[in-house]
Amino acid sequence: MIVESAKLLADRHMAPYFKEMDEKKAEYDGHGGVKTHPQLKIIIHEAAQQGWISGASSFELGGLQLPMMIFNSGQHIFQAANNGCQGYFSLTTGSAALITSFGNHQQIEMFVPKMFGGEWQGTMALTEPQAGSSLTDITTSASLREDGMYSITGQKIFISGGQHEACNNFVHLTLARIKGAPAGVKGISLFIIPKFWPQADGSLVANDVFCAGDFQKMGQRGYCTTHLVFGEQNNCKGWLVGEPNKGLTYMFQMMNEARISVGLSAASVAMAAYQASLQYASERPQGRLASEKDPLKPPTLIINHPDVQRMLLTQKAIVEGALSLVMECNRLTDNMHVAEGEEKHTNWLLLEILTPIVKTYAAEQGSRSAALAIQTLGGYGFTMDFPVQQHYRDLKIMSLYEGTTGIQSLDLLGRKVTMEKGKALTELIRTIEDCIRQADTYGSLQPFAKALKVELERVQAVTSHLTALMGSGDIDRSLADAAVYMELLSYGVIGWQWLKQATVAYTQLQSSNFTNQTREFYEGKVHTMKFFFRYELPHAEACAKTILNPEFLTNLRKREVLA
Amino acid sequence: MIVESAKLLADRHMAPYFKEMDEKKAEYDGHGGVKTHPQLKIIIHEAAQQGWISGASSFELGGLQLPMMIFNSGQHIFQAANNGCQGYFSLTTGSAALITSFGNHQQIEMFVPKMFGGEWQGTMALTEPQAGSSLTDITTSASLREDGMYSITGQKIFISGGQHEACNNFVHLTLARIKGAPAGVKGISLFIIPKFWPQADGSLVANDVFCAGDFQKMGQRGYCTTHLVFGEQNNCKGWLVGEPNKGLTYMFQMMNEARISVGLSAASVAMAAYQASLQYASERPQGRLASEKDPLKPPTLIINHPDVQRMLLTQKAIVEGALSLVMECNRLTDNMHVAEGEEKHTNWLLLEILTPIVKTYAAEQGSRSAALAIQTLGGYGFTMDFPVQQHYRDLKIMSLYEGTTGIQSLDLLGRKVTMEKGKALTELIRTIEDCIRQADTYGSLQPFAKALKVELERVQAVTSHLTALMGSGDIDRSLADAAVYMELLSYGVIGWQWLKQATVAYTQLQSSNFTNQTREFYEGKVHTMKFFFRYELPHAEACAKTILNPEFLTNLRKREVLA
Repeated sequence: MIVESAKLLADRHMAPYFKEMDEKKAEYDGHGGVKTHPQLKIIIHEAAQQGWISGASSFELGGLQLPMMIFNSGQHIFQAANNGCQGYFSLTTGSAALITSFGNHQQIEMFVPKMFGGEWQGTMALTEPQAGSSLTDITTSASLREDGMYSITGQKIFISGGQHEACNNFVHLTLARIKGAPAGVKGISLFIIPKFWPQADGSLVANDVFCAGDFQKMGQRGYCTTHLVFGEQNNCKGWLVGEPNKGLTYMFQMMNEARISVGLSAASVAMAAYQASLQYASERPQGRLASEKDPLKPPTLIINHPDVQRMLLTQKAIVEGALSLVMECNRLTDNMHVAEGEEKHTNWLLLEILTPIVKTYAAEQGSRSAALAIQTLGGYGFTMDFPVQQHYRDLKIMSLYEGTTGIQSLDLLGRKVTMEKGKALTELIRTIEDCIRQADTYGSLQPFAKALKVELERVQAVTSHLTALMGSGDIDRSLADAAVYMELLSYGVIGWQWLKQATVAYTQLQSSNFTNQTREFYEGKVHTMKFFFRYELPHAEACAKTILNPEFLTNLRKREVLA
Repeated sequence: MIVESAKLLADRHMAPYFKEMDEKKAEYDGHGGVKTHPQLKIIIHEAAQQGWISGASSFELGGLQLPMMIFNSGQHIFQAANNGCQGYFSLTTGSAALITSFGNHQQIEMFVPKMFGGEWQGTMALTEPQAGSSLTDITTSASLREDGMYSITGQKIFISGGQHEACNNFVHLTLARIKGAPAGVKGISLFIIPKFWPQADGSLVANDVFCAGDFQKMGQRGYCTTHLVFGEQNNCKGWLVGEPNKGLTYMFQMMNEARISVGLSAASVAMAAYQASLQYASERPQGRLASEKDPLKPPTLIINHPDVQRMLLTQKAIVEGALSLVMECNRLTDNMHVAEGEEKHTNWLLLEILTPIVKTYAAEQGSRSAALAIQTLGGYGFTMDFPVQQHYRDLKIMSLYEGTTGIQSLDLLGRKVTMEKGKALTELIRTIEDCIRQADTYGSLQPFAKALKVELERVQAVTSHLTALMGSGDIDRSLADAAVYMELLSYGVIGWQWLKQATVAYTQLQSSNFTNQTREFYEGKVHTMKFFFRYELPHAEACAKTILNPEFLTNLRKREVLA
């Protein structure tokens, strides 16, 4: 019922404006404002009214306590329909969650209801022009005032939703450094910096927060990306969240959720491109099979050409593989909230190691998938008359949002794989082995169960090699191929998701008693698993060979040779 | 000297308008015209004046008889500077070459001088709305008139340069079917259909050619892509080129050159993106190496981060590998023109098999390369403030132009690999073996010579497998993985180009007597060869495994499973 309501909302208010919000893009008005599409106000209002901002939060706060799997099934539909507009309200969800998790009672009361109502936009303000991904180097500063608030001075860039016409206040969850704080990430605190301070009587008083520009981008053009200046007139007031110097720890709660959300967004946009190309291929007659030599025979639908089928199946393998992993992460999040003790910890460990993977796989392979959608349409795919080019443009941001692929790869190999003496990876492998054992009970799935087992052994061998290198103290060299390691592990993880889906589907096919889906649906799952194992998985071995190659190139990668 | 003059021209007249021609894009004016950037007229004029339209043609025709290697070194610079604008005049070069090759004296005299002068734009008009890549199905018709000309009726889409403000006439080299001609590609003829017919007194009289629209695209937005209507008022006159029903054979001369040119264009645009990201990485300080734990140390330039080096070297490996292969093709073209007998034929065979590969590798891997350029810049790469996003958008057309990757792959496996009983592939392997033997004389290159030998054996094994399948009559199944075969063979071919470059560079380094380049230049070549062999080449084995997998999926690829 909930998912159906999301579909109605997306069909009615979001999907019809996908193209238009790209054409009539968000633009700076020259004096502090950003012009956005008029539909945006309606979208945010409707999303809020129907619980798509607050839905996953507790009853006490006005939410529906929806499990993440359900809540994000709705978000998937919105992202596939119009990913730029979904960003606005889902960012408010994340910002509000940060306040409810770490803010005090007054802060929650002052900001969260208006954010849940869609009247106020929440943002996350991390990046600074000089620091980029290096949060160590942020310089936005905070100094304690007499009233317990902080005076804030600094600039933030790439702030999605930082200023627009659809909301009347903006709540910037901002990282800044309190004067005298320790250097590096240990001296970063989290502040609420609203554009307007709400007064007791409900009126709004301006804070010294100025939007100085809106970055123009190749994609997600309806989704504004602002440049914010705090304290230009020395009158910007921020409210500390939680304890000083713990800002990054707090922010990482939101960041981790945001990373999974970017993975979902990438998978969803790629899904939209896949569906558009599937529809086109099912309707467009062109050419004949190579075996048909008679030019007088009528042209066939392009879906009958083997190479078009390869392009469609590659998209399906990527898109549904990534989506499945996102849902696995949502399931772990849901379980973590109800589990206790060791089980809770295990869920958390799995989520920690899967987060960089789901974000990166969906973003990188999602872009490749959307390229295949364009390719399926041929020249038409490159024209503005079809949506796939917009999907392709929008998708490119996903490998940059919330930490680039390079950053995610360092997080995976340098932090997640080594945490608790490798326990997260051990738990992941154990979980995948469970899946392999289940698949192994069906004769026709055994070759695939065996193939995945080989992949796990490969991952373990490569990991041992790299951790030995780390142990020897050569940190830079051990992390140099982190992105290749990410690709290697991703193949195994997505292979696991496909084997898992195929096992469920095969079980259903054996029973011949289909409840929710058609026989074709289940056959499609088994078939796409086979496709993934045949066309995608072999590249894992190539990644391993690259990493294990005894001729280690890192120290040869000097600047000069790039001339 | 000639290359330097190209650089001056590009720096002065083309590069400064790269961004602007994207922003102020080509647009239909609603009544037959296409508005284009005012600079375009200057660019075409200057290019013509300096011989960049006619340069490769004979003295008799007003050309400089430049070898293709020299002529295209200039084009490389133009494409890297502003690929959209280069398209206009290089298309005129190709169209004029078609007339000079197959047209009669009057046709050459009437059209070629004005085309070489840049006053008239040449185009190639193949694609029709209902037929797409399937030229068999074109329906534009021609019927003989009393004066020996033909009345033409029909529509063509995706006609680059078909109408714009920088030229005063348009010479459309058009495929059409003479009434009563055989069905299929054997009944296609080639016509010259000018927008205006030149009269004896030099005046121009309108032909019934109407531009009905300009496709708006995600990239190459300054390069118009028109929809042409011939004979709407039953008054469109076309002039047959050569003999009836030989149109496709003629067109394939231009097409083959155009395919290599698209490969060059893709490599050039990817080169521009690589250079932009290399420059950014060399100037932008951000973060510290993983081994540096002190947050008070100043940030390092991002080029010092191993993952940034990986991204830059991947780009260099792709871009310079593709460019090297383009130049190999140009060399073969040049040799073919002077060689005789068996040698001429061998050059031709090599060119036939390399043409689909150079086009596809540069297009597909060029897109991946430009994605890494964006990634190197991080979030900035996605903004319109930097050129890499435009390179990425422009590049996407390259895998569609002049036959999609799917079409190129069918051409490679279904036609080129099998032609003359496999002689083209045999010659290619023999040529690569020569290179391996040369590399093998240097101890430090031996591991790479050996690795490439393994790749050749792999290609042969896979080819035998597929040709056996063809022999058994299962044409559709044998061609189903043509795109994977294309990828497999490309790795070997680009590996060959890298080994060849590295051998030359190594020879230079041994002599310590550098004439044209620095030591770093040669070291960079050897190093990038090693990088390619370590990071890229292992994926060839994965492609082979996919193709050789005994579980053949093709007949399972039915439409239903895509649900």
